Amino acid sequence: MDLIRRFSLCCALAAGLALLAPAAFAEQEAPQIENFTLDNGLEVVVIPDHRAPVVTHMVWYKVGSADEEPGKSGIAHFLEHLMFKGTEKYGPGVFSARIAEVGGRENAFTSYDYTAYYQQVAPDLLPEMMAMEADRMTNLILTDEVIAPERDVVIEERNSRVENEPRSLLSEEVNATLYQNHPYRFPVIGWMHEIEKLNRDDAIEFYRRHYAPNNAVLVIAGDVEPAAVRELAEETYGKVARGPELPPRLRPTEPEQNTRRTVTLNDARVGVPNFSKRWLVPSYTTAEPGAAEALDILSEVLGGGVRSRLYQELVVKQGIASSAMAYYQGTALDDTMFMVLGSPRGDATIEDVEKAIDAEVAKIAADGVTEEEVEKAKKRFVRSMIFARDEQDGMARIYGSTLTTGGTVEDIANWPDRIRAVKAEDVKAAATRWLDERRAVAAYLLPQE
Amino acid sequence: MDLIRRFSLCCALAAGLALLAPAAFAEQEAPQIENFTLDNGLEVVVIPDHRAPVVTHMVWYKVGSADEEPGKSGIAHFLEHLMFKGTEKYGPGVFSARIAEVGGRENAFTSYDYTAYYQQVAPDLLPEMMAMEADRMTNLILTDEVIAPERDVVIEERNSRVENEPRSLLSEEVNATLYQNHPYRFPVIGWMHEIEKLNRDDAIEFYRRHYAPNNAVLVIAGDVEPAAVRELAEETYGKVARGPELPPRLRPTEPEQNTRRTVTLNDARVGVPNFSKRWLVPSYTTAEPGAAEALDILSEVLGGGVRSRLYQELVVKQGIASSAMAYYQGTALDDTMFMVLGSPRGDATIEDVEKAIDAEVAKIAADGVTEEEVEKAKKRFVRSMIFARDEQDGMARIYGSTLTTGGTVEDIANWPDRIRAVKAEDVKAAATRWLDERRAVAAYLLPQE
Repeated sequence: MDLIRRFSLCCALAAGLALLAPAAFAEQEAPQIENFTLDNGLEVVVIPDHRAPVVTHMVWYKVGSADEEPGKSGIAHFLEHLMFKGTEKYGPGVFSARIAEVGGRENAFTSYDYTAYYQQVAPDLLPEMMAMEADRMTNLILTDEVIAPERDVVIEERNSRVENEPRSLLSEEVNATLYQNHPYRFPVIGWMHEIEKLNRDDAIEFYRRHYAPNNAVLVIAGDVEPAAVRELAEETYGKVARGPELPPRLRPTEPEQNTRRTVTLNDARVGVPNFSKRWLVPSYTTAEPGAAEALDILSEVLGGGVRSRLYQELVVKQGIASSAMAYYQGTALDDTMFMVLGSPRGDATIEDVEKAIDAEVAKIAADGVTEEEVEKAKKRFVRSMIFARDEQDGMARIYGSTLTTGGTVEDIANWPDRIRAVKAEDVKAAATRWLDERRAVAAYLLPQE
Repeated sequence: MDLIRRFSLCCALAAGLALLAPAAFAEQEAPQIENFTLDNGLEVVVIPDHRAPVVTHMVWYKVGSADEEPGKSGIAHFLEHLMFKGTEKYGPGVFSARIAEVGGRENAFTSYDYTAYYQQVAPDLLPEMMAMEADRMTNLILTDEVIAPERDVVIEERNSRVENEPRSLLSEEVNATLYQNHPYRFPVIGWMHEIEKLNRDDAIEFYRRHYAPNNAVLVIAGDVEPAAVRELAEETYGKVARGPELPPRLRPTEPEQNTRRTVTLNDARVGVPNFSKRWLVPSYTTAEPGAAEALDILSEVLGGGVRSRLYQELVVKQGIASSAMAYYQGTALDDTMFMVLGSPRGDATIEDVEKAIDAEVAKIAADGVTEEEVEKAKKRFVRSMIFARDEQDGMARIYGSTLTTGGTVEDIANWPDRIRAVKAEDVKAAATRWLDERRAVAAYLLPQE
């Protein structure tokens, strides 16, 4: 099976989602979406989009790697793979074969806070997709015969995506350092030695506990009518029995952090060195009102593109970096991270890049940003996200990721107004309050000494 | 109640135990100890010591902070406090009052791997101590009235021992960095925000699950006869019902580590800076045969006293440090740490101390140590531990800590021979294999910048 289709490493995915955030709706009002809940607890979102005869069908489960038991890292992602192993009604591979046969696309991905499955097909095939997806919500068959080979697939995936990628290896250990108590410290794909021990019982237990209509969100975007979708949803997903009530997703939270930390990887496979720094910051779900929006604008002013301070100063003016950027992982159930990064160029060293980045951060904390910068940043921020709207599944992802990380449809609707309300002083306050050395981990990716 | 009596911060305790390790018996054969197990699963060790009319009575539970559930850090230690709250038979404070009345001493301590309670009294009072300790093994009464005030005591204890001690604050975050997956990353006393939420249900659940004769070791050292102790044990502890079988103590283990890390605390309360470095290394329980013994000798050659390389080089010869030492925390159920530390003196900086320490470590890894050094180290190692034998409770602690961390009475008996077998090449191999920068965290304790 195709690994790429099956898995998005959370960082890549999450970063993408941050950039796809609800700003897509900033320049036009939110579409007339329909939002309702079936009797068995399944929340449904329908997003009409009649530009083309295509529909995106997604099921999002409110479970991700941060919901795993200690010692079982990787089980959420492993189960995502196993979800393709078939049911009594649709045997192994039947679902995927059918999608290929009709020229559709499918994907699945696991992150810290959610696991999602999707297909993109012509609208007349939607009923079939819904029937098959609803079926594997509860009827998955897992035999020992499929466990070991699929575990080997995941191990190979980890080899290729992490063990052979120094940047990923470093990133894992940075997260394990930044988060001292919270399970975001564990890699989504799992530690190798724990993946190797995952078994059928682990997968079944995880599936039975977390996969149920009352722990999922169905998102359908495309050339469909909400009333028809509702009827279809009731005929398919509506027949799946409600699962036991799940306890609130209360994970261990971070203690007060007091230290600045560094993590260094020297690896012979590293060509270009890279500096990065991550701070522990609140997410849209955990922040006080306005704080996450200010962090979003801060990331844009500081490092959101070629007009940003980091790019202009390090790449254009000083010429010491080949890249320099910032991003804020705002979509998360729990406290999350704000990140800056850059790679040296020419004779410049990684220390030069670090110093220049630190200076830009310090400058904002000390002197703030101008209202003009903030206004331009809002526009750039919005403009760079317009692309999300153009991709039907980008829209669906915004709803899925928001609704599985503690947000609501209303949060998405009023997000543009909240972004518009950010003032220059809020951005300065965000930098001062959150980009604190005592909550930071600097990371150095370097060639072998 | 007296905080000091109730609690030993694990680091301090563990360090003490390392120095008290079974080497106490290197210069004389192990005493004629008696070791048996009651029908209900309680293991008993009797260590006759007729030098004075005193007996040490200890119960060790095979549960510590590393056995806590995520989000419940501190519950093992909190329960240790609550164990003094009385039973139906012996009300709150009655046990302690009785000990004070007869001029005895008592103590209790919690560590990563065990929780222990002890009294030291005249031998004729042993039956009473055993009756009372056996009683609270199963009959503890916990009311809401005692929970909140005792939690405040623990919070105050954390304030005084951690929040007001920059060195402890730093040490906590170093452990949270060194251990990326294993629960040794969490402080024994617990994170403040988690202590604050511990409640009666948590304590009762933990007590019911872990406190039972088949999860405990009784150690009695002193002016007693084994046969008499056996009879007493059967009359007291023997009446306590066996608890449910506990699953093996399999905690999440460390992934392969690839990075070198630093943790820095700048704090206005720091007078003298301090440098330390910790490596993740095997313990006596997890090591291949001979590896832990070699690490013990390595710690002695490198930094085990005023004759050690670190002391001679940094303090005596270069005069750049006021202190310099090494220690190995060998007594642990899981992989553990090897540590070096030193404080700068005069005009020397913390970087000077770091460089000099690193150079000494590198020298051993590159050039090894001499057989003469190893022989002298063995002798010094043994000599420095003779004191343990002189303290009756030191002896009892060796048995208790060994038997609750996966070791046996035989391990203690043959430990001197295993230490005598360490060769210079083993010490070099230990330094090369284990003092690897990719498994290390350097820590800097500094005044405010």
